[in-house]
Amino acid sequence: MTDPGFGLDHLPYGVFSVDGGPRRVGVRHEDTVVDLAAATGRPELDAPSLNAFLALGPAVWHETRSQARTLAESGEHAVPLADVTLHLPFEVADYVDFYASEHHATNVGRIFRPDGDALLPNWKHLPVGYHGRAGTVVPSGTAVVRPRGQRPGGHFGASTRLDIEAELGFVVGVGSALGTPVPYDAFADHVFGVVGLNDWSARDIQAWEYVPLGPFLGKSFATSVSHWVTPLEALAEAWVDLPGQDPEPLPYLGPGATRGLDIDVEVVVNGTVISRPSYRTMYWSPAQMLAHLTVNGASLRTGDLYGSGTISGPEADQRGSLLEIGWGDESAFLADGDEVVLRYTAPGTGGGRIALGDVSGRIAPAAD
Amino acid sequence: MTDPGFGLDHLPYGVFSVDGGPRRVGVRHEDTVVDLAAATGRPELDAPSLNAFLALGPAVWHETRSQARTLAESGEHAVPLADVTLHLPFEVADYVDFYASEHHATNVGRIFRPDGDALLPNWKHLPVGYHGRAGTVVPSGTAVVRPRGQRPGGHFGASTRLDIEAELGFVVGVGSALGTPVPYDAFADHVFGVVGLNDWSARDIQAWEYVPLGPFLGKSFATSVSHWVTPLEALAEAWVDLPGQDPEPLPYLGPGATRGLDIDVEVVVNGTVISRPSYRTMYWSPAQMLAHLTVNGASLRTGDLYGSGTISGPEADQRGSLLEIGWGDESAFLADGDEVVLRYTAPGTGGGRIALGDVSGRIAPAAD
Repeated sequence: MTDPGFGLDHLPYGVFSVDGGPRRVGVRHEDTVVDLAAATGRPELDAPSLNAFLALGPAVWHETRSQARTLAESGEHAVPLADVTLHLPFEVADYVDFYASEHHATNVGRIFRPDGDALLPNWKHLPVGYHGRAGTVVPSGTAVVRPRGQRPGGHFGASTRLDIEAELGFVVGVGSALGTPVPYDAFADHVFGVVGLNDWSARDIQAWEYVPLGPFLGKSFATSVSHWVTPLEALAEAWVDLPGQDPEPLPYLGPGATRGLDIDVEVVVNGTVISRPSYRTMYWSPAQMLAHLTVNGASLRTGDLYGSGTISGPEADQRGSLLEIGWGDESAFLADGDEVVLRYTAPGTGGGRIALGDVSGRIAPAAD
Repeated sequence: MTDPGFGLDHLPYGVFSVDGGPRRVGVRHEDTVVDLAAATGRPELDAPSLNAFLALGPAVWHETRSQARTLAESGEHAVPLADVTLHLPFEVADYVDFYASEHHATNVGRIFRPDGDALLPNWKHLPVGYHGRAGTVVPSGTAVVRPRGQRPGGHFGASTRLDIEAELGFVVGVGSALGTPVPYDAFADHVFGVVGLNDWSARDIQAWEYVPLGPFLGKSFATSVSHWVTPLEALAEAWVDLPGQDPEPLPYLGPGATRGLDIDVEVVVNGTVISRPSYRTMYWSPAQMLAHLTVNGASLRTGDLYGSGTISGPEADQRGSLLEIGWGDESAFLADGDEVVLRYTAPGTGGGRIALGDVSGRIAPAAD
């Protein structure tokens, strides 16, 4: 057992292929992938993405997890991880990114608006969010080409302020009807699981373009997610009370029901851990974000992905972006060739910790 | 011939079904739908959306249009429009909305920031845009449920400032590779055609939520598009020079190559034409928007949709939103039961004008 984070209490889902063969669904167990499609004969698993399986809902998710555990214990249908190619685990329907860390929002406010209030007036009333580009969500390991574009003043060139945002992503399995909000306490009826997520950001492009309609090309060149989707069932012991909310949020946001995930993140740049954020320090909870996203009647679809926003804690060594870590030092941003890995751990159901799928990416030079 | 806008020089594409049967692709000719799937046997047309056909590219689009014209002339495979149900014509991949009318951006700036500059510093340097929610793009005729949400100050309730945005939408057929920008002169290699588009907007929700990450729930409850996609070939005579751009845009935006579409819009509320915007008055061109959208290396997918933003001209009777038409008069916003229809006409290739598919929607009361 070379990797203690992928034991029987974890069993995250992914999509793999062998020797250029068809893509299909498997679960990771230690250093193997259990070929669930072959083992179960379930047609939704003999598919190039998790979407058909995700759409089946919590009862099937639970039953399949039991099957996967039995299979993993038996060692049958186990393919060595070294022999497989891993793919984007699900087709992203809509991608929304939130801004749910008070420490991150405060830090960014101080850096960009040193003379104004760090938090804008709406921030503690609702989880601020926006839509990102679903078509450029890529799996861990995909090279990130340094984007070109307009920087402040309308000058054109390759971004010189290329950054990361260490986040968690929540994957919607079961959709909802247009016009019908999803209440916060229906979170587990719709959300299947969690991925690691790096929302790559070109701060110079973003700074010039973002008024008044928000980030666009400063974000849309790439968003990386982990190969593995950790089901909520594997995180049953990871729920904790978040720090608290003042003012009390509106009823649709479930005041007093702000449970978050005790997930620790490591930000690793070129092999060195430079920061250790934790989701424990976040302000808005995953269920609150889902309730907010749909309160206007917007429907959910299988494959919808929403990110937490940068996870930054109160301490200087808990920041989830280089903008905050460097705090004005331009050399903190990424150089060509730099490799960033985000690692995630959480309490498992077996007493130890599980390791969520990590998210890596190396910066390639801008195109000519 | 009861409708002069749908003659042989138009032949827009849509998806229809008869008596609950399977959805398939047809083209509209006068008051009929030509059953292209049945007539041509092409498998990409025997499909519940246009996407597989759109992915085939300009040569097939041209060849199929010739076949459609021959079929329409023959009268074969023509199903009466009254006998069909029309559907969303394509699966929306990513939805981006721009803000390409100088008159609209100036009007909105004056209304929301009466003491500041009407246009923000970036506006004449790049086509400002953002991502919207693809999963809530609905076909013309779908009821629009008045959204609920947080209004300024964090007060909760049904929107009292429900608005329209009269726009054109551009439908991407051929995708592009991640990391490779699409130049402005490759517009027709990627874009298949044009839809009418109403970007329903809840101004009170939008005003409270939109800093700093842009519009979210104020827009994401519904975006309506026409049943019919007018191919670019039918608009060959509709291209005109836009008013001009100062300062000259950067090379990637094709300075001097700003061709727009001579498409007139009628905004009809409860049967009365209240405004007549025209795309002739826009600042940024469709090709510039596409070049900007991809300059950072963001890839395109079949089914991507991008909107022009509200089409508003220089005159008071050419405004494309109720916010501008009412200019401070709260009674200008939509009441429950109001019906909005956007109608579009353009020069055809036969000397007359064609009528693009219209976009209608009636406001349903907010959910309890």
